[in-house]
Amino acid sequence: MAASAGPEIERLISLLAKLPGLGPRSARRAALALLKRRDQLLAPLSEALADAAARVKTCSVCGSLDTRDPCAICADPGRDGSLICVVEEVGALWAMERAGAFRGRYHVLGGLLSALDGVGPDALRIGRLVGRVANEGVREVILALPATVDGQTTAHYLAERLAGTGVSVTMLARGVPVGGELDWLDDGTIAQALRARRPA
Amino acid sequence: MAASAGPEIERLISLLAKLPGLGPRSARRAALALLKRRDQLLAPLSEALADAAARVKTCSVCGSLDTRDPCAICADPGRDGSLICVVEEVGALWAMERAGAFRGRYHVLGGLLSALDGVGPDALRIGRLVGRVANEGVREVILALPATVDGQTTAHYLAERLAGTGVSVTMLARGVPVGGELDWLDDGTIAQALRARRPA
Repeated sequence: MAASAGPEIERLISLLAKLPGLGPRSARRAALALLKRRDQLLAPLSEALADAAARVKTCSVCGSLDTRDPCAICADPGRDGSLICVVEEVGALWAMERAGAFRGRYHVLGGLLSALDGVGPDALRIGRLVGRVANEGVREVILALPATVDGQTTAHYLAERLAGTGVSVTMLARGVPVGGELDWLDDGTIAQALRARRPA
Repeated sequence: MAASAGPEIERLISLLAKLPGLGPRSARRAALALLKRRDQLLAPLSEALADAAARVKTCSVCGSLDTRDPCAICADPGRDGSLICVVEEVGALWAMERAGAFRGRYHVLGGLLSALDGVGPDALRIGRLVGRVANEGVREVILALPATVDGQTTAHYLAERLAGTGVSVTMLARGVPVGGELDWLDDGTIAQALRARRPA
């Protein structure tokens, strides 16, 4: 590709190209930006990555990522331990935290059940969720899973697995997103929002 | 942003967000991808960055980036030293090399003259280009600069600076790009391609 640039830069480009959102062309641009801003960008990013590689681990309770185990949320006594929000991945957990509306704890599945990709219950952190529900005095499990086929399959499966434990299993409401124009919404969302309509 | 993720991950995200092509949202996705593929992606990228920070330098002859100085192209005796291709940045040099049609040497300006951004001749590697033309037996200087206002301003300035040295100053042809549909081309390109028409 950039044979003239030497193997070090080529290797950097090919690694950057593996990041989601960066293709071969933008990886080259990113590598150049890094090499041009060596002190402000390249060196700090190199350190931040080494730091993350050395210190960030998976929380043994909920599956989130943090430098401590249990993670800051699991260890926070101010969090309501009787509420568990189940998410697919840590990215969804961060999104919930940014929304700032949830004060319970989390459980990160590490993926979704998928017949197509051959992901069964054993590949996910489901057994540990059932264990937490049994042992931690959980009152409600909120399924914050994506509104996709795999997300809904996983939600149904979890609802069945937790049936009979006495815990209440709920899921996020479906409807028109804030700022959403009806014109731009898909029919499925409009139909769900209509079925779930409430007094104004 | 992701207060629950700890300062290490937040710092990583904010550094990734400074790369061109990555916004705050894709930087979060990239950080998660890195943390999930620690051995295959995070550790190698961390090493590649440290390696680049330690070893890649600017070629004192042409301004390109390489682990050696002079760079591999400037040091290659198989390259035609009587031809110098002037580019704005190393990214353009790499693009020329990928095209594989040029066997001379390069000169990286490090930017373009810009009245708007206050970039004058002294901020660019122009004096060194004039020096190379005087001392290296250069026959032709090919200006491979972008077809923008700043690119053309810079090309005119360089042609004037090099006038009287006896060197031939040329620039890349303008025209319809390979695979270009006339329907999708801007009027300026079509007009230039028409003026520069050749026998079929």
